[in-house]
Amino acid sequence: MTIAITGSASGIGAATAAALSAAGHDIIGIDLRDADVRADLADPASRAAAIEKVTERCGGTLDGAVLCAGVGPHTPDPLRLIDINYHAAVAVLDGLLPVLCKAESPAVVVVSSVASVQVTWAENPLATDPTPADLTAALRPAGDYAGHLAYAWSKNALTVAVRRRAADWGAAGVRLNTVAPGTVDTPLLRAGLDDPRYGDLIRGFTAPIARTAEPAEIASLTTYLLGPQAGYIHGAQFVIDGGVDAATRPTMF
Amino acid sequence: MTIAITGSASGIGAATAAALSAAGHDIIGIDLRDADVRADLADPASRAAAIEKVTERCGGTLDGAVLCAGVGPHTPDPLRLIDINYHAAVAVLDGLLPVLCKAESPAVVVVSSVASVQVTWAENPLATDPTPADLTAALRPAGDYAGHLAYAWSKNALTVAVRRRAADWGAAGVRLNTVAPGTVDTPLLRAGLDDPRYGDLIRGFTAPIARTAEPAEIASLTTYLLGPQAGYIHGAQFVIDGGVDAATRPTMF
Repeated sequence: MTIAITGSASGIGAATAAALSAAGHDIIGIDLRDADVRADLADPASRAAAIEKVTERCGGTLDGAVLCAGVGPHTPDPLRLIDINYHAAVAVLDGLLPVLCKAESPAVVVVSSVASVQVTWAENPLATDPTPADLTAALRPAGDYAGHLAYAWSKNALTVAVRRRAADWGAAGVRLNTVAPGTVDTPLLRAGLDDPRYGDLIRGFTAPIARTAEPAEIASLTTYLLGPQAGYIHGAQFVIDGGVDAATRPTMF
Repeated sequence: MTIAITGSASGIGAATAAALSAAGHDIIGIDLRDADVRADLADPASRAAAIEKVTERCGGTLDGAVLCAGVGPHTPDPLRLIDINYHAAVAVLDGLLPVLCKAESPAVVVVSSVASVQVTWAENPLATDPTPADLTAALRPAGDYAGHLAYAWSKNALTVAVRRRAADWGAAGVRLNTVAPGTVDTPLLRAGLDDPRYGDLIRGFTAPIARTAEPAEIASLTTYLLGPQAGYIHGAQFVIDGGVDAATRPTMF
Protein backbone atom coordinates (compact mmCIF):
# COMPACT_ATOMS: atom_id res chain seq x y z
CA MET A 1 0.00 0.00 0.00
CA THR A 2 1.05 3.60 -0.58
CA ILE A 3 0.64 5.72 2.55
CA ALA A 4 1.25 9.46 2.99
CA ILE A 5 2.50 10.68 6.39
CA THR A 6 2.63 14.30 7.48
CA GLY A 7 5.21 15.23 10.10
CA SER A 8 7.28 12.25 8.92
CA ALA A 9 10.68 13.68 9.88
CA SER A 10 10.42 13.38 13.65
CA GLY A 11 8.59 12.00 16.67
CA ILE A 12 5.41 9.99 16.11
CA GLY A 13 5.52 10.66 12.36
CA ALA A 14 9.03 9.25 11.99
CA ALA A 15 8.16 6.20 14.09
CA THR A 16 5.01 5.65 12.01
CA ALA A 17 6.97 5.91 8.76
CA ALA A 18 9.48 3.39 10.09
CA ALA A 19 6.78 0.95 11.27
CA LEU A 20 4.75 1.10 8.05
CA SER A 21 7.89 0.89 5.94
CA ALA A 22 9.02 -2.18 7.89
CA ALA A 23 5.57 -3.69 7.20
CA GLY A 24 6.30 -3.36 3.48
CA HIS A 25 4.34 -0.22 2.63
CA ASP A 26 5.47 2.53 0.30
CA ILE A 27 5.69 5.75 2.32
CA ILE A 28 5.34 9.32 1.07
CA GLY A 29 6.79 11.48 3.83
CA ILE A 30 5.72 15.12 4.11
CA ASP A 31 7.56 17.56 6.37
CA LEU A 32 9.38 20.88 6.49
CA ARG A 33 12.66 19.03 5.80
CA ASP A 34 14.08 15.50 5.48
CA ALA A 35 11.01 14.30 3.59
CA ASP A 36 9.91 13.13 0.13
CA VAL A 37 7.62 16.14 -0.07
CA ARG A 38 8.91 19.28 1.64
CA ALA A 39 6.16 21.72 2.59
CA ASP A 40 4.95 24.16 5.22
CA LEU A 41 1.43 22.80 5.61
CA ALA A 42 0.22 25.94 7.41
CA ASP A 43 0.88 27.93 4.23
CA PRO A 44 -2.02 27.42 1.78
CA ALA A 45 0.15 27.62 -1.36
CA SER A 46 2.78 25.24 0.01
CA ARG A 47 0.02 22.90 1.20
CA ALA A 48 -1.68 22.85 -2.21
CA ALA A 49 1.68 22.09 -3.84
CA ALA A 50 2.28 19.28 -1.35
CA ILE A 51 -1.11 17.68 -2.08
CA GLU A 52 -0.33 17.96 -5.79
CA LYS A 53 3.05 16.26 -5.28
CA VAL A 54 1.48 13.44 -3.23
CA THR A 55 -1.13 12.96 -5.95
CA GLU A 56 1.61 12.65 -8.59
CA ARG A 57 3.85 10.46 -6.45
CA CYS A 58 1.05 7.97 -5.68
CA GLY A 59 -0.18 7.88 -9.26
CA GLY A 60 -3.63 9.16 -8.31
CA THR A 61 -4.48 6.38 -5.84
CA LEU A 62 -3.56 6.64 -2.17
CA ASP A 63 -4.22 3.67 0.12
CA GLY A 64 -3.71 5.45 3.40
CA ALA A 65 -2.68 8.60 5.20
CA VAL A 66 -1.44 9.38 8.69
CA LEU A 67 -1.61 13.00 9.82
CA CYS A 68 1.03 13.53 12.49
CA ALA A 69 2.19 17.08 11.75
CA GLY A 70 1.63 19.30 14.77
CA VAL A 71 3.29 21.55 17.30
CA GLY A 72 3.18 21.64 21.09
CA PRO A 73 1.86 24.02 23.77
CA HIS A 74 5.28 25.67 24.09
CA THR A 75 5.00 27.09 20.53
CA PRO A 76 5.48 30.87 20.85
CA ASP A 77 2.41 31.93 18.84
CA PRO A 78 -0.80 30.13 19.93
CA LEU A 79 -2.63 31.30 16.80
CA ARG A 80 0.00 29.67 14.62
CA LEU A 81 -0.35 26.54 16.75
CA ILE A 82 -4.09 26.45 16.00
CA ASP A 83 -3.37 27.01 12.33
CA ILE A 84 -0.94 24.09 12.13
CA ASN A 85 -2.68 21.60 14.42
CA TYR A 86 -6.25 22.24 13.27
CA HIS A 87 -6.83 24.26 10.10
CA ALA A 88 -3.87 22.83 8.17
CA ALA A 89 -4.59 19.27 9.27
CA VAL A 90 -8.24 19.47 8.21
CA ALA A 91 -7.26 21.05 4.88
CA VAL A 92 -4.74 18.26 4.19
CA LEU A 93 -7.36 15.67 5.15
CA ASP A 94 -9.90 17.07 2.71
CA GLY A 95 -7.22 17.65 0.08
CA LEU A 96 -6.27 13.97 0.08
CA LEU A 97 -9.85 12.64 -0.08
CA PRO A 98 -10.02 12.51 -3.91
CA VAL A 99 -6.96 10.22 -4.17
CA LEU A 100 -7.99 8.17 -1.14
CA CYS A 101 -11.41 7.50 -2.70
CA LYS A 102 -9.69 5.75 -5.62
CA ALA A 103 -8.12 3.06 -3.42
CA GLU A 104 -9.67 -0.32 -2.67
CA SER A 105 -10.01 -0.03 1.11
CA PRO A 106 -8.45 3.27 2.11
CA ALA A 107 -7.97 4.31 5.72
CA VAL A 108 -6.71 7.41 7.49
CA VAL A 109 -5.45 7.97 11.02
CA VAL A 110 -5.25 11.49 12.42
CA VAL A 111 -3.04 12.05 15.45
CA SER A 112 -5.06 14.08 17.94
CA SER A 113 -4.22 14.12 21.66
CA VAL A 114 -5.74 13.22 25.00
CA ALA A 115 -5.76 17.01 25.46
CA SER A 116 -8.74 16.92 23.08
CA VAL A 117 -10.95 15.89 26.02
CA GLN A 118 -9.72 18.67 28.31
CA VAL A 119 -12.25 21.05 26.74
CA THR A 120 -15.70 20.40 25.33
CA TRP A 121 -16.82 21.47 21.88
CA ALA A 122 -19.50 23.60 23.56
CA GLU A 123 -16.82 25.70 25.25
CA ASN A 124 -14.29 25.57 22.38
CA PRO A 125 -14.05 28.97 20.61
CA LEU A 126 -13.02 27.15 17.41
CA ALA A 127 -16.62 25.95 17.16
CA THR A 128 -17.68 29.44 16.11
CA ASP A 129 -15.02 30.15 13.43
CA PRO A 130 -13.47 33.04 15.38
CA THR A 131 -11.35 35.89 14.02
CA PRO A 132 -7.70 36.12 15.16
CA ALA A 133 -8.73 39.01 17.41
CA ASP A 134 -11.49 36.89 18.99
CA LEU A 135 -9.00 34.08 19.64
CA THR A 136 -6.41 36.41 21.12
CA ALA A 137 -9.06 37.82 23.46
CA ALA A 138 -10.26 34.33 24.44
CA LEU A 139 -6.69 33.24 25.20
CA ARG A 140 -5.76 36.31 27.27
CA PRO A 141 -7.09 35.03 30.65
CA ALA A 142 -4.86 31.95 30.35
CA GLY A 143 -1.72 34.12 30.59
CA ASP A 144 1.41 31.98 30.41
CA TYR A 145 -0.71 28.92 29.65
CA ALA A 146 -2.32 30.29 26.50
CA GLY A 147 -0.28 27.78 24.52
CA HIS A 148 -1.73 24.85 26.44
CA LEU A 149 -5.28 26.15 26.05
CA ALA A 150 -4.77 26.71 22.33
CA TYR A 151 -3.35 23.18 22.06
CA ALA A 152 -6.40 21.64 23.77
CA TRP A 153 -8.75 23.68 21.55
CA SER A 154 -6.86 22.68 18.41
CA LYS A 155 -6.92 18.95 19.23
CA ASN A 156 -10.56 19.03 20.39
CA ALA A 157 -11.52 20.70 17.10
CA LEU A 158 -9.43 18.22 15.12
CA THR A 159 -11.16 15.21 16.68
CA VAL A 160 -14.58 16.82 16.11
CA ALA A 161 -13.66 17.47 12.46
CA VAL A 162 -12.78 13.80 12.02
CA ARG A 163 -15.96 12.58 13.70
CA ARG A 164 -18.11 14.96 11.65
CA ARG A 165 -16.73 13.35 8.50
CA ALA A 166 -17.67 9.82 9.58
CA ALA A 167 -20.97 9.68 7.67
CA ASP A 168 -19.72 11.11 4.34
CA TRP A 169 -16.33 9.43 4.37
CA GLY A 170 -17.92 6.14 5.36
CA ALA A 171 -20.27 6.42 2.38
CA ALA A 172 -17.22 7.15 0.21
CA GLY A 173 -15.55 4.01 1.56
CA VAL A 174 -12.74 5.80 3.40
CA ARG A 175 -12.21 4.84 7.03
CA LEU A 176 -11.13 7.68 9.28
CA ASN A 177 -10.10 7.52 12.95
CA THR A 178 -8.03 9.43 15.50
CA VAL A 179 -5.46 8.24 17.98
CA ALA A 180 -5.17 10.38 21.11
CA PRO A 181 -1.79 9.95 22.79
CA GLY A 182 -0.89 11.13 26.25
CA THR A 183 2.77 11.94 26.94
CA VAL A 184 5.04 10.42 24.31
CA ASP A 185 8.84 10.66 24.30
CA THR A 186 9.18 12.99 21.29
CA PRO A 187 10.96 16.28 20.47
CA LEU A 188 7.57 17.96 21.13
CA LEU A 189 7.46 16.60 24.71
CA ARG A 190 11.14 17.36 25.32
CA ALA A 191 10.62 20.97 24.20
CA GLY A 192 7.75 21.19 26.73
CA LEU A 193 9.97 19.76 29.48
CA ASP A 194 12.62 22.40 28.67
CA ASP A 195 10.05 25.21 28.85
CA PRO A 196 9.97 26.99 32.24
CA ARG A 197 6.17 27.36 31.98
CA TYR A 198 5.47 23.67 31.34
CA GLY A 199 8.45 21.63 32.56
CA ASP A 200 7.43 21.17 36.19
CA LEU A 201 3.78 20.72 35.24
CA ILE A 202 4.61 17.85 32.88
CA ARG A 203 7.10 16.25 35.31
CA GLY A 204 4.59 16.52 38.18
CA PHE A 205 2.02 14.52 36.27
CA THR A 206 2.12 10.74 36.56
CA ALA A 207 -0.08 8.36 34.58
CA PRO A 208 -1.44 5.15 36.18
CA ILE A 209 1.12 3.43 33.93
CA ALA A 210 3.98 5.50 35.30
CA ARG A 211 6.09 6.21 32.21
CA THR A 212 5.85 8.08 28.92
CA ALA A 213 4.94 6.21 25.75
CA GLU A 214 7.49 5.39 23.07
CA PRO A 215 6.63 6.80 19.63
CA ALA A 216 6.71 3.20 18.34
CA GLU A 217 3.72 2.36 20.55
CA ILE A 218 1.61 5.05 18.86
CA ALA A 219 2.91 3.85 15.50
CA SER A 220 1.85 0.30 16.31
CA LEU A 221 -1.73 1.35 17.14
CA THR A 222 -1.88 3.44 13.95
CA THR A 223 -0.60 0.48 11.92
CA TYR A 224 -3.37 -1.68 13.40
CA LEU A 225 -6.02 0.93 12.59
CA LEU A 226 -4.88 1.17 8.96
CA GLY A 227 -4.96 -2.59 8.49
CA PRO A 228 -7.64 -4.92 7.12
CA GLN A 229 -8.56 -6.28 10.57
CA ALA A 230 -9.75 -2.79 11.59
CA GLY A 231 -12.31 -2.64 8.78
CA TYR A 232 -15.24 -1.89 11.10
CA ILE A 233 -13.43 0.78 13.14
CA HIS A 234 -14.53 4.18 11.87
CA GLY A 235 -14.98 7.64 13.36
CA ALA A 236 -13.48 6.48 16.66
CA GLN A 237 -10.91 8.09 18.92
CA PHE A 238 -8.44 5.58 20.40
CA VAL A 239 -6.84 6.99 23.53
CA ILE A 240 -3.32 5.71 24.35
CA ASP A 241 -2.32 7.58 27.49
CA GLY A 242 -1.39 5.12 30.23
CA GLY A 243 -4.76 5.60 31.94
CA VAL A 244 -4.75 9.37 32.45
CA ASP A 245 -8.12 10.02 30.83
CA ALA A 246 -9.84 7.18 32.72
CA ALA A 247 -8.36 8.30 36.05
CA THR A 248 -9.29 11.94 35.38
CA ARG A 249 -12.84 11.53 34.11
CA PRO A 250 -13.96 7.94 34.78
CA THR A 251 -17.64 8.55 34.11
CA MET A 252 -17.17 10.25 30.72
CA PHE A 253 -16.25 8.54 27.44
CA MET B 1 0.02 -16.88 27.98
CA THR B 2 -2.93 -18.27 29.89
CA ILE B 3 -6.10 -16.28 29.25
CA ALA B 4 -9.56 -16.74 30.80
CA ILE B 5 -12.60 -15.89 28.65
CA THR B 6 -16.15 -15.59 29.94
CA GLY B 7 -18.96 -16.25 27.47
CA SER B 8 -16.54 -18.44 25.54
CA ALA B 9 -19.15 -20.77 24.03
CA SER B 10 -20.71 -18.39 21.50
CA GLY B 11 -20.54 -15.10 19.66
CA ILE B 12 -17.69 -12.70 20.45
CA GLY B 13 -16.42 -14.95 23.23
CA ALA B 14 -16.09 -17.97 20.93
CA ALA B 15 -14.39 -15.88 18.25
CA THR B 16 -12.00 -14.46 20.85
CA ALA B 17 -11.17 -17.94 22.17
CA ALA B 18 -10.48 -19.08 18.60
CA ALA B 19 -8.28 -16.06 17.78
CA LEU B 20 -6.24 -16.24 20.98
CA SER B 21 -5.92 -20.00 20.69
CA ALA B 22 -4.68 -19.63 17.11
CA ALA B 23 -2.11 -17.12 18.40
CA GLY B 24 -0.74 -19.86 20.68
CA HIS B 25 -2.32 -18.92 23.98
CA ASP B 26 -3.76 -21.33 26.52
CA ILE B 27 -7.47 -20.56 26.93
CA ILE B 28 -9.68 -21.18 29.95
CA GLY B 29 -13.24 -20.90 28.67
CA ILE B 30 -16.06 -20.08 31.07
CA ASP B 31 -19.71 -20.43 30.08
CA LEU B 32 -23.00 -22.06 30.99
CA ARG B 33 -22.08 -25.00 28.75
CA ASP B 34 -19.44 -26.15 26.26
CA ALA B 35 -16.65 -24.65 28.34
CA ASP B 36 -13.66 -25.66 30.48
CA VAL B 37 -15.37 -24.08 33.46
CA ARG B 38 -19.16 -24.33 33.50
CA ALA B 39 -20.85 -21.67 35.62
CA ASP B 40 -23.81 -19.32 35.89
CA LEU B 41 -21.87 -16.15 36.60
CA ALA B 42 -24.98 -14.29 37.80
CA ASP B 43 -25.21 -16.76 40.70
CA PRO B 44 -22.75 -15.76 43.46
CA ALA B 45 -21.98 -19.34 44.54
CA SER B 46 -21.48 -20.58 41.00
CA ARG B 47 -19.35 -17.52 40.24
CA ALA B 48 -17.13 -18.05 43.29
CA ALA B 49 -16.67 -21.68 42.27
CA ALA B 50 -15.76 -20.60 38.73
CA ILE B 51 -13.12 -18.15 39.97
CA GLU B 52 -11.74 -20.91 42.18
CA LYS B 53 -11.56 -23.29 39.21
CA VAL B 54 -9.83 -20.69 37.03
CA THR B 55 -7.32 -20.08 39.83
CA GLU B 56 -6.55 -23.80 40.01
CA ARG B 57 -6.46 -24.29 36.26
CA CYS B 58 -3.98 -21.39 35.72
CA GLY B 59 -1.77 -22.44 38.64
CA GLY B 60 -2.31 -19.15 40.45
CA THR B 61 -1.00 -16.90 37.68
CA LEU B 62 -3.31 -15.57 34.97
CA ASP B 63 -1.81 -13.55 32.08
CA GLY B 64 -5.04 -12.20 30.71
CA ALA B 65 -8.82 -12.20 30.80
CA VAL B 66 -11.55 -11.28 28.35
CA LEU B 67 -15.02 -10.70 29.77
CA CYS B 68 -17.54 -11.36 27.02
CA ALA B 69 -20.43 -12.95 28.93
CA GLY B 70 -23.56 -10.90 28.50
CA VAL B 71 -27.15 -10.93 27.31
CA GLY B 72 -29.07 -8.68 24.93
CA PRO B 73 -31.95 -6.20 25.19
CA HIS B 74 -34.47 -8.89 24.21
CA THR B 75 -33.77 -10.78 27.48
CA PRO B 76 -37.18 -11.22 29.19
CA ASP B 77 -36.17 -9.90 32.63
CA PRO B 78 -34.31 -6.56 32.51
CA LEU B 79 -33.19 -6.91 36.13
CA ARG B 80 -31.54 -10.21 35.32
CA LEU B 81 -29.92 -8.53 32.31
CA ILE B 82 -28.40 -5.90 34.61
CA ASP B 83 -27.24 -8.61 36.97
CA ILE B 84 -25.45 -10.55 34.24
CA ASN B 85 -24.03 -7.68 32.19
CA TYR B 86 -22.97 -5.45 35.08
CA HIS B 87 -22.90 -6.91 38.59
CA ALA B 88 -21.62 -10.34 37.59
CA ALA B 89 -19.04 -8.92 35.17
CA VAL B 90 -17.62 -6.55 37.79
CA ALA B 91 -17.55 -9.34 40.39
CA VAL B 92 -15.65 -11.63 38.01
CA LEU B 93 -13.24 -8.81 37.20
CA ASP B 94 -12.45 -8.19 40.86
CA GLY B 95 -12.40 -11.92 41.59
CA LEU B 96 -9.66 -12.48 39.01
CA LEU B 97 -7.46 -9.56 40.13
CA PRO B 98 -5.39 -11.60 42.64
CA VAL B 99 -4.28 -14.12 40.01
CA LEU B 100 -3.81 -11.43 37.36
CA CYS B 101 -1.50 -9.48 39.70
CA LYS B 102 0.88 -12.44 39.75
CA ALA B 103 1.55 -12.34 36.00
CA GLU B 104 4.41 -10.46 34.35
CA SER B 105 2.40 -8.03 32.20
CA PRO B 106 -1.25 -8.94 32.65
CA ALA B 107 -4.04 -7.34 30.64
CA VAL B 108 -7.82 -7.53 30.62
CA VAL B 109 -10.40 -6.59 28.00
CA VAL B 110 -14.02 -6.16 29.00
CA VAL B 111 -16.63 -6.27 26.24
CA SER B 112 -18.93 -3.32 26.77
CA SER B 113 -21.06 -1.88 23.94
CA VAL B 114 -21.52 1.31 21.99
CA ALA B 115 -24.86 1.39 23.86
CA SER B 116 -22.75 2.48 26.86
CA VAL B 117 -22.72 6.02 25.43
CA GLN B 118 -26.48 6.16 24.90
CA VAL B 119 -26.91 7.21 28.53
CA THR B 120 -24.70 9.26 30.81
CA TRP B 121 -23.56 8.16 34.23
CA ALA B 122 -25.36 11.20 35.68
CA GLU B 123 -28.70 9.85 34.42
CA ASN B 124 -27.89 6.15 34.99
CA PRO B 125 -29.87 4.75 37.96
CA LEU B 126 -27.10 2.18 38.52
CA ALA B 127 -24.94 5.06 39.79
CA THR B 128 -26.98 5.13 43.00
CA ASP B 129 -26.99 1.39 43.84
CA PRO B 130 -30.79 1.06 43.46
CA THR B 131 -33.07 -1.63 44.90
CA PRO B 132 -34.85 -3.96 42.46
CA ALA B 133 -38.05 -2.00 43.15
CA ASP B 134 -36.29 1.28 42.27
CA LEU B 135 -35.02 -0.24 39.02
CA THR B 136 -38.41 -1.64 38.08
CA ALA B 137 -39.96 1.79 38.67
CA ALA B 138 -37.24 3.52 36.64
CA LEU B 139 -37.75 1.08 33.75
CA ARG B 140 -41.56 1.33 33.68
CA PRO B 141 -41.78 4.44 31.40
CA ALA B 142 -39.75 2.61 28.73
CA GLY B 143 -42.56 0.06 28.26
CA ASP B 144 -41.62 -2.47 25.56
CA TYR B 145 -38.12 -1.01 25.38
CA ALA B 146 -37.24 -1.56 29.04
CA GLY B 147 -34.78 -4.22 27.89
CA HIS B 148 -32.93 -1.79 25.68
CA LEU B 149 -32.77 0.83 28.44
CA ALA B 150 -31.53 -1.74 30.96
CA TYR B 151 -28.93 -2.86 28.41
CA ALA B 152 -27.63 0.69 27.93
CA TRP B 153 -27.54 1.24 31.70
CA SER B 154 -25.70 -2.05 32.27
CA LYS B 155 -23.04 -1.32 29.63
CA ASN B 156 -22.61 2.32 30.71
CA ALA B 157 -22.09 1.14 34.29
CA LEU B 158 -19.68 -1.57 33.16
CA THR B 159 -17.48 0.91 31.27
CA VAL B 160 -17.54 3.30 34.25
CA ALA B 161 -16.53 0.43 36.56
CA VAL B 162 -13.55 -0.34 34.31
CA ARG B 163 -12.47 3.29 34.09
CA ARG B 164 -12.79 3.75 37.85
CA ARG B 165 -10.30 0.92 38.31
CA ALA B 166 -7.67 2.52 36.06
CA ALA B 167 -5.66 4.13 38.87
CA ASP B 168 -5.54 1.14 41.24
CA TRP B 169 -5.17 -1.53 38.59
CA GLY B 170 -2.50 0.52 36.83
CA ALA B 171 -0.59 0.74 40.13
CA ALA B 172 -0.97 -3.04 40.46
CA GLY B 173 0.46 -3.47 36.95
CA VAL B 174 -2.73 -4.84 35.37
CA ARG B 175 -3.90 -3.13 32.19
CA LEU B 176 -7.66 -2.91 31.79
CA ASN B 177 -9.63 -1.64 28.79
CA THR B 178 -13.06 -2.01 27.20
CA VAL B 179 -14.06 -2.63 23.61
CA ALA B 180 -17.43 -1.21 22.63
CA PRO B 181 -18.89 -2.99 19.62
CA GLY B 182 -21.84 -1.81 17.56
CA THR B 183 -23.89 -4.46 15.77
CA VAL B 184 -22.01 -7.75 15.50
CA ASP B 185 -23.29 -10.86 13.76
CA THR B 186 -23.81 -12.99 16.89
CA PRO B 187 -26.61 -15.08 18.43
CA LEU B 188 -27.35 -12.03 20.63
CA LEU B 189 -27.96 -9.83 17.57
CA ARG B 190 -29.95 -12.53 15.77
CA ALA B 191 -32.21 -12.94 18.81
CA GLY B 192 -32.79 -9.19 18.70
CA LEU B 193 -33.65 -9.33 14.99
CA ASP B 194 -36.17 -12.10 15.70
CA ASP B 195 -37.82 -10.06 18.46
CA PRO B 196 -40.92 -8.15 17.30
CA ARG B 197 -40.01 -5.20 19.55
CA TYR B 198 -36.47 -4.79 18.23
CA GLY B 199 -36.24 -6.42 14.80
CA ASP B 200 -37.38 -3.47 12.67
CA LEU B 201 -35.47 -1.00 14.83
CA ILE B 202 -32.20 -2.87 14.32
CA ARG B 203 -32.83 -3.44 10.60
CA GLY B 204 -33.73 0.24 10.09
CA PHE B 205 -30.42 1.36 11.50
CA THR B 206 -27.50 1.65 9.09
CA ALA B 207 -23.92 2.42 10.12
CA PRO B 208 -21.69 4.63 7.92
CA ILE B 209 -19.90 1.35 7.15
CA ALA B 210 -23.08 -0.34 6.03
CA ARG B 211 -22.76 -3.86 7.40
CA THR B 212 -22.58 -5.64 10.73
CA ALA B 213 -19.22 -6.60 12.22
CA GLU B 214 -17.97 -10.17 12.24
CA PRO B 215 -17.18 -11.52 15.73
CA ALA B 216 -13.61 -12.11 14.48
CA GLU B 217 -13.15 -8.34 14.04
CA ILE B 218 -13.91 -7.73 17.72
CA ALA B 219 -11.63 -10.64 18.61
CA SER B 220 -8.82 -9.11 16.56
CA LEU B 221 -9.07 -5.78 18.39
CA THR B 222 -9.15 -7.58 21.74
CA THR B 223 -6.09 -9.62 20.77
CA TYR B 224 -4.26 -6.39 19.92
CA LEU B 225 -5.24 -4.82 23.26
CA LEU B 226 -3.96 -7.85 25.21
CA GLY B 227 -0.61 -7.83 23.42
CA PRO B 228 2.73 -6.27 24.31
CA GLN B 229 2.42 -3.48 21.74
CA ALA B 230 -0.60 -2.14 23.63
CA GLY B 231 1.41 -1.64 26.83
CA TYR B 232 0.48 2.05 27.19
CA ILE B 233 -3.24 1.57 26.47
CA HIS B 234 -5.08 1.55 29.79
CA GLY B 235 -8.54 2.58 31.00
CA ALA B 236 -9.64 3.29 27.44
CA GLN B 237 -12.82 2.38 25.61
CA PHE B 238 -12.21 1.35 21.99
CA VAL B 239 -15.39 1.74 19.95
CA ILE B 240 -15.75 -0.60 16.94
CA ASP B 241 -19.12 0.27 15.45
CA GLY B 242 -18.74 1.21 11.79
CA GLY B 243 -19.00 4.92 12.61
CA VAL B 244 -22.34 4.98 14.43
CA ASP B 245 -21.09 6.79 17.53
CA ALA B 246 -19.22 9.44 15.53
CA ALA B 247 -22.21 10.05 13.26
CA THR B 248 -24.60 10.22 16.22
CA ARG B 249 -22.61 12.45 18.57
CA PRO B 250 -19.69 13.94 16.63
CA THR B 251 -18.79 16.54 19.24
CA MET B 252 -18.64 14.14 22.20
CA PHE B 253 -15.88 11.62 22.93
